[in-house]
Amino acid sequence: MNFSSDTAAPAHPSVLEAMGRANDGAEASYGADRITARLRARLAEVFETDDFDFWLTASGTASNALALSCFCPPTHSILCHHEAHIQMDERGAVEFFTGGGRLALLPGTGAKIDYDVFADYLGNVDPSFVHGTPPAVLSLTNLTECGMAYSPDEVARFARRAKGGKLAVHMDGARFANALVHTGASPAQMSWQAGVDVLTLGLTKTGAAGCEIILLFGAAKAKGGELRARAKRSGHMPPKMRFLAAQAEAMLEGGLWLTLAAHANAMAARLAGVFTGAGYELAWDVQGNEVFALLDPRAVQDLQEDNARFYADWPGGSSRFVCSWATTEAEIADLKDTLVRPPRI
Amino acid sequence: MNFSSDTAAPAHPSVLEAMGRANDGAEASYGADRITARLRARLAEVFETDDFDFWLTASGTASNALALSCFCPPTHSILCHHEAHIQMDERGAVEFFTGGGRLALLPGTGAKIDYDVFADYLGNVDPSFVHGTPPAVLSLTNLTECGMAYSPDEVARFARRAKGGKLAVHMDGARFANALVHTGASPAQMSWQAGVDVLTLGLTKTGAAGCEIILLFGAAKAKGGELRARAKRSGHMPPKMRFLAAQAEAMLEGGLWLTLAAHANAMAARLAGVFTGAGYELAWDVQGNEVFALLDPRAVQDLQEDNARFYADWPGGSSRFVCSWATTEAEIADLKDTLVRPPRI
Amino acid sequence: MNFSSDTAAPAHPSVLEAMGRANDGAEASYGADRITARLRARLAEVFETDDFDFWLTASGTASNALALSCFCPPTHSILCHHEAHIQMDERGAVEFFTGGGRLALLPGTGAKIDYDVFADYLGNVDPSFVHGTPPAVLSLTNLTECGMAYSPDEVARFARRAKGGKLAVHMDGARFANALVHTGASPAQMSWQAGVDVLTLGLTKTGAAGCEIILLFGAAKAKGGELRARAKRSGHMPPKMRFLAAQAEAMLEGGLWLTLAAHANAMAARLAGVFTGAGYELAWDVQGNEVFALLDPRAVQDLQEDNARFYADWPGGSSRFVCSWATTEAEIADLKDTLVRPPRI
Amino acid sequence: MNFSSDTAAPAHPSVLEAMGRANDGAEASYGADRITARLRARLAEVFETDDFDFWLTASGTASNALALSCFCPPTHSILCHHEAHIQMDERGAVEFFTGGGRLALLPGTGAKIDYDVFADYLGNVDPSFVHGTPPAVLSLTNLTECGMAYSPDEVARFARRAKGGKLAVHMDGARFANALVHTGASPAQMSWQAGVDVLTLGLTKTGAAGCEIILLFGAAKAKGGELRARAKRSGHMPPKMRFLAAQAEAMLEGGLWLTLAAHANAMAARLAGVFTGAGYELAWDVQGNEVFALLDPRAVQDLQEDNARFYADWPGGSSRFVCSWATTEAEIADLKDTLVRPPRI
Repeated sequence: MNFSSDTAAPAHPSVLEAMGRANDGAEASYGADRITARLRARLAEVFETDDFDFWLTASGTASNALALSCFCPPTHSILCHHEAHIQMDERGAVEFFTGGGRLALLPGTGAKIDYDVFADYLGNVDPSFVHGTPPAVLSLTNLTECGMAYSPDEVARFARRAKGGKLAVHMDGARFANALVHTGASPAQMSWQAGVDVLTLGLTKTGAAGCEIILLFGAAKAKGGELRARAKRSGHMPPKMRFLAAQAEAMLEGGLWLTLAAHANAMAARLAGVFTGAGYELAWDVQGNEVFALLDPRAVQDLQEDNARFYADWPGGSSRFVCSWATTEAEIADLKDTLVRPPRI
Repeated sequence: MNFSSDTAAPAHPSVLEAMGRANDGAEASYGADRITARLRARLAEVFETDDFDFWLTASGTASNALALSCFCPPTHSILCHHEAHIQMDERGAVEFFTGGGRLALLPGTGAKIDYDVFADYLGNVDPSFVHGTPPAVLSLTNLTECGMAYSPDEVARFARRAKGGKLAVHMDGARFANALVHTGASPAQMSWQAGVDVLTLGLTKTGAAGCEIILLFGAAKAKGGELRARAKRSGHMPPKMRFLAAQAEAMLEGGLWLTLAAHANAMAARLAGVFTGAGYELAWDVQGNEVFALLDPRAVQDLQEDNARFYADWPGGSSRFVCSWATTEAEIADLKDTLVRPPRI
Repeated sequence: MNFSSDTAAPAHPSVLEAMGRANDGAEASYGADRITARLRARLAEVFETDDFDFWLTASGTASNALALSCFCPPTHSILCHHEAHIQMDERGAVEFFTGGGRLALLPGTGAKIDYDVFADYLGNVDPSFVHGTPPAVLSLTNLTECGMAYSPDEVARFARRAKGGKLAVHMDGARFANALVHTGASPAQMSWQAGVDVLTLGLTKTGAAGCEIILLFGAAKAKGGELRARAKRSGHMPPKMRFLAAQAEAMLEGGLWLTLAAHANAMAARLAGVFTGAGYELAWDVQGNEVFALLDPRAVQDLQEDNARFYADWPGGSSRFVCSWATTEAEIADLKDTLVRPPRI
Repeated sequence: MNFSSDTAAPAHPSVLEAMGRANDGAEASYGADRITARLRARLAEVFETDDFDFWLTASGTASNALALSCFCPPTHSILCHHEAHIQMDERGAVEFFTGGGRLALLPGTGAKIDYDVFADYLGNVDPSFVHGTPPAVLSLTNLTECGMAYSPDEVARFARRAKGGKLAVHMDGARFANALVHTGASPAQMSWQAGVDVLTLGLTKTGAAGCEIILLFGAAKAKGGELRARAKRSGHMPPKMRFLAAQAEAMLEGGLWLTLAAHANAMAARLAGVFTGAGYELAWDVQGNEVFALLDPRAVQDLQEDNARFYADWPGGSSRFVCSWATTEAEIADLKDTLVRPPRI
């Protein structure tokens, strides 16, 4: 019963098999290999466009910070939700990679940025005020840190306003596949068609061993050279990149990433049902693979005593349970048994 | 016939097998897993000490820059050879990770720092001169960029002088195993016993898929917390770290890393014999897995036409050939055939 | 009628006279001059201690960022009020000087940090959580951005709690003299005796041409070398430093700085009386040289038409009026005339 | 007899008088004042163009680093002489302001870059080599650190080649006036007409209290906004900027800067004659206000005992003597007396 994080799950077997197949003879280093080349064609299919550039890393933190550093000069700021992963959980990576850029924090329910506050903020920016740190990028997280999904229409609304203020639009897609499954949107609809300039497409939480893709769409392609230079400079251009490319290829092959995300979402829905069936409320609507349940202390204790792993003290008072491609119905049944068992005396 | 780099080689099969075994069920993220814990014990054995801390990355550039950033404040400099990898091939990673520290370059034959120049440099440092950038670290590369090995005694001589000047001692050991095999030194003799404070132990070139270990010895352990914080901040704390730890474990198991390095060194010696046997001189004595041959243009052309991969225009006028764990006698025989074949007309 | 800022005022004549006297013959550069040496003795008197080190700059932004960069590693954060000058008006200087450190923002009335929120924040810091950016410094601004003063007791309460959490305590004293005058505290009481480790003592707003003093008290003296290195590196070690020292000396001579601040505070009190006498409310109690009046649009327009300079759109809806050493009773009388004049038709 | 540096000299009286005149009533802050506006017109005259932008600082280190940071991304490097002030004497300011950019050092006699080495270096740059740190800027120092002057033709030759390689051209003109006087070139000829994009025009060594001008010529004007943002962010936008502008205005008024530099150059020529007349050789031809004499130890000791101030251990074995606007014929006569006095017994 490990619901601590989708990063606690192993990789899907297909991923390791692909790495094994990639381990065949000599191969050019640093991304000049044949698998990386093949991956490009696959990404073009998946995103229904040739108008993109991309880079691979093994870390979501690195991907976010690299992506943002190409669009936010050190003298500017990045607008994001105050609970965004880049704010809460990346040890100031964005500040490091941007050379001292700043995150400017916005509120909103379910870790979704409140559109009106955002629009108001942009309306008050005075680019001639040299003492301030004007925004250069809007960063949306989809799924959000509360497991909520932005729809393509919502993203597009933000992106239009952002571009009116000359901001680039970044999406932190650590759980992008889960958001696609929930909304029914295609990768293209959720990214470049909605106005996203640069997407951090996470595959590690979805089922890879460690693989994230930074995608630059349309005019943002011009940042491809800078992205590679920054990747090299930050140690995110490992020599045997074939092993990253192989992971990405395996995940995209036959839509495996979406299949795995659909499973994780389904398990989360089932888990949510367990909680609500037992009379507990949820802090947030379940729109992906995360469940935030408002448990009582006894329930928390019972679960912990039965070795269920989850975050009991999530900010806001809920307990966080994350499902992954590897979550089984049996794990959920076990959790249910613990939850509904009569109190111990 | 791929002699372009030891990074072009695949991983040793044991490494991927170990990753497969590691892919078993849920596991704590970010280095709190059981394999990483087990690795610590193994490293203690290998380095004959418990007095160390360590961290894993997938990139040598990251490992060097992270290691150095814990010892060089932004206001200071790092002494290294002017051909060192950190100077030539890491896109300013050290400057980035240190927040604007500087590399101060020293000369020396075979990319080994000239001891007298080094001692003289230190002798001229005036720490009270606020306008300068005084050195805080000495970085030695072993093997050097010319494939030469420092002996433990040589390292110890540098380290003593460095410490007299309050410098920390870093070793870039991207090809550490090759240096051990050549010199016959033990890991302990070549590192902490010789005065090395922080070692970047590369395993990728030796045979891993992508795995480097930063080791902090003795008093340098105090930097362990900072190292983790900087690793997180730079995206070098991937969630599923078990896959890094599994690689390291496989490489160290039964001395595999040394066996593989011994093979690579032996192949290089054999390759050197092919060149000298054909009447070519070597730029540098072969002390590891790299051969720098002074070929004539015809020989270069012949080899290239027969699809031998190597760097024909290495700085200094030689051609660089690198052997790896995967280099075969057959490849060397093929190269020999091309080399001694009568000129084409 | 210029109430736009105390930085719009000229320098007090004594300051320029002192610069003129300093302009006499050759003098050692970079702070090794005789006037800087003399200043040290004067500061010891003013602060009633010899246990300090100091540096001079011509910019409050530089002084704050330099001071903070000696205490906040790039992996950490600085706690400050969300309206603090370092957050609102210094173009990310702190992020720049710290190498990507972060400001963590706290609420509170009148731009004074709410003690309970602060204590609660510290109570929730988990230093072992490598993903976060733990605080290393608390920065208090006195006067605050709303013109409010912390008393020595209040400062001491914050400092005690900060030190319990191993934070250094910084005070942004751009209007330190105004706070001293209002509270009746001595320089020592408001700084090191209350637990301040590093004080940015502003003299420019008080009456200098451009002169700020960074003071390191007690154990913080150990940062003196680093402070100088960072000052040099950031271009804040001008060769002819005698002109900075001369300004500081002139301001401290005979308590001129306090006399000038007392005048500015008195003018502000009188100005506040004008507003309240005319039936307007004040947004904040006047505790220094700033008045935040809640005017109606007609009053704002009338004043602007009469060429009164002030900030009409201060955040929160008030209009900000700043008095300086150069503000005259006549200016205030002029303003009063405009304000109480019957409406134009 | 103070020949230690032109920074040890006082400011010219006209400069302090101008500051006094500027100290008249309220004035807009941060460069929006009337004197700064007036200065722009004066600079247009002096440089015979309207096609420029500019900013003022009180520090040459700041001016160089700010100027360079607008043209060198953190992933790139700046070509300069290995004895350049930015390399030797600015505590890594360029690395700091660029966010970790690098200085790449070139040789050359008299601290003038060797053109052929430079051209060769550029010829070997491979912009597609992501592992290197390609140059983005060429920085020339005029006068050089050995007191030598580049002629406008020499500058133009460097600039043409630099631009062929897409490098921006920076001139560190800490002693620009001295170079103008020596070469007879006009400010325009030595800067934008020769291809200089950004000039750090030093006035402090020439006779100001502390005033340097960064000038952006032609297309480089596009960096004006970034320059201001970086100036603010680094604490180089002091509120009462009128005092910087007043200094610049006083120095340019009636060609005072050139008159003062001519005096300093003349004194240096006379001083050189003293040394050569006494049988000493000069390390470098005197082309400005600096004399590098190859003295014997006895002469050095005699001078020091007579309280002559100079650098006795200049790199390369010479003793450095710097003349300024304030150097008198009497000082030189005194030095001559000491130098030619019969040896003490």
